[in-house]
Amino acid sequence: MQFSKGVSPKFALVAMTMLPAVAGQNLTSEQEFNAKRTTSFGVVLFPGFEPLDVYGPMEILIQLSAKVKMTVAFISFETGPVNSRYTPHGQPPTDFGYMLGTSTTATHTFADAPALDVILVPGGTGTRTLVKRDPDDHRSREIEDFLRRRADQADYILGVCTGSVLLARAGLLAGRRATTNKAAWSWVTGVGSAVGASSDSNNIAWVPSARWTVDGKVWTSSGVAAGMDMMYAFARHAYGPELANAAVNAAEYAPHQDPDWDPFSVVYEVPGADASRSLTSCVAPAGF
Amino acid sequence: MQFSKGVSPKFALVAMTMLPAVAGQNLTSEQEFNAKRTTSFGVVLFPGFEPLDVYGPMEILIQLSAKVKMTVAFISFETGPVNSRYTPHGQPPTDFGYMLGTSTTATHTFADAPALDVILVPGGTGTRTLVKRDPDDHRSREIEDFLRRRADQADYILGVCTGSVLLARAGLLAGRRATTNKAAWSWVTGVGSAVGASSDSNNIAWVPSARWTVDGKVWTSSGVAAGMDMMYAFARHAYGPELANAAVNAAEYAPHQDPDWDPFSVVYEVPGADASRSLTSCVAPAGF
Repeated sequence: MQFSKGVSPKFALVAMTMLPAVAGQNLTSEQEFNAKRTTSFGVVLFPGFEPLDVYGPMEILIQLSAKVKMTVAFISFETGPVNSRYTPHGQPPTDFGYMLGTSTTATHTFADAPALDVILVPGGTGTRTLVKRDPDDHRSREIEDFLRRRADQADYILGVCTGSVLLARAGLLAGRRATTNKAAWSWVTGVGSAVGASSDSNNIAWVPSARWTVDGKVWTSSGVAAGMDMMYAFARHAYGPELANAAVNAAEYAPHQDPDWDPFSVVYEVPGADASRSLTSCVAPAGF
Repeated sequence: MQFSKGVSPKFALVAMTMLPAVAGQNLTSEQEFNAKRTTSFGVVLFPGFEPLDVYGPMEILIQLSAKVKMTVAFISFETGPVNSRYTPHGQPPTDFGYMLGTSTTATHTFADAPALDVILVPGGTGTRTLVKRDPDDHRSREIEDFLRRRADQADYILGVCTGSVLLARAGLLAGRRATTNKAAWSWVTGVGSAVGASSDSNNIAWVPSARWTVDGKVWTSSGVAAGMDMMYAFARHAYGPELANAAVNAAEYAPHQDPDWDPFSVVYEVPGADASRSLTSCVAPAGF
């Protein structure tokens, strides 16, 4: 039995015991499993998260949830509103307080988040402060500790944008390919690979030109809107093309389906970016 | 003096008194005005709003707000969390309660929203219940009354997705071109143009193939993700290409810039859709 790239061994074992393929569709065993179970998603939030990092992928999941069962927990330091505009206290790296902000309600904390099958980690200006590791601020480590605790139980961990810096510092990118927001490339790869950040952090295969990467159970995307393209690819992988296409078509989103199309790595002059490729991508409604 | 399509007469009068163009840029008078003022945006929320209808455009505004001053008010029936998953009470048209939901914090009510320059109206499953006009539910009329009250003072009103049905029933589309979510086309145009819905509602020039439309101060977009393309076009119009391009590039979003590209009108078989056009759109980072 063949398993598609990115399937974790745990899925393979469980899926093999599942019932035969849904009639009329050529689904993988994992896709059949996901069609039957209620998948538990978790979305990490923190002050200064980037809204589209969360809501681009969430829109696709919401559309999918009309047809397959799933739950979502929004997880932060406290329940209640979490603002996307980071208003730093004390000595901020940068004051973004004057910018627009939105508040999303966290439903769980890192202490009581439910069992999770898939964990989505957004980026945003707030990652800069989390990584600063103010010794007086315990919250700097709380997200990384949470990811470290839950990583093994999760089937997949998806990092969007600068969210990959949190994955890196939690040790989840050790020996794996990964990418990140291209405008913040040097900061993320520098901090994420810093000796001492994590015992495995200087063994990350950062990919300079990638809209998203897949390495086992860990997926990472380029900045902000790239999260939508990664989530479409993930939806195809986890649920099959029919459900994935229906979801993005309902959102009138024509996804970029080539993970190697990464024009922003050229725009932001990432060292090692593939400048020979065209910056152009031609898209149409998925499945058409 | 030439004014670009979509400029309201009020802008023309005010802008003419403004200082000369910013050195080095060829901005319109309106763009110079917007670069100087703190623009007041309002986003309407209601239970069952479609998240990407709000957060696609918001992401672009957030990026713009790093460079130009603006404020945003999230406006609903009550302040506090507004859930995107509509859980109907009483006799719902459809139960969507099992789907994923997210909560966004409303900062103002329809009664106390501040003076607004630009009003964004999203769509979503919640519009179905709002339009149902349950005589026992005063909320059905509250949004339409709000839009009617504030329309004249606003410089622009932007409807995303099925949000155009609320604009229609508030009389704001009378004698104007408009479009909407293509999967919900027949419902929106039927209900939006129903005799009795609004004295002017049967004089709407619904455009079957349009990613977005512009008619004076009223802009409307196709479904969900189309809101981002409309907002990029709006950002170019209101702030000029330099700021607009910087915003979408920071979001790693390559916008669709042709308002006539509307493949979903063909996918969803909208009567009168232009099926002769290619479904494909080729995009690159804005300005590249």
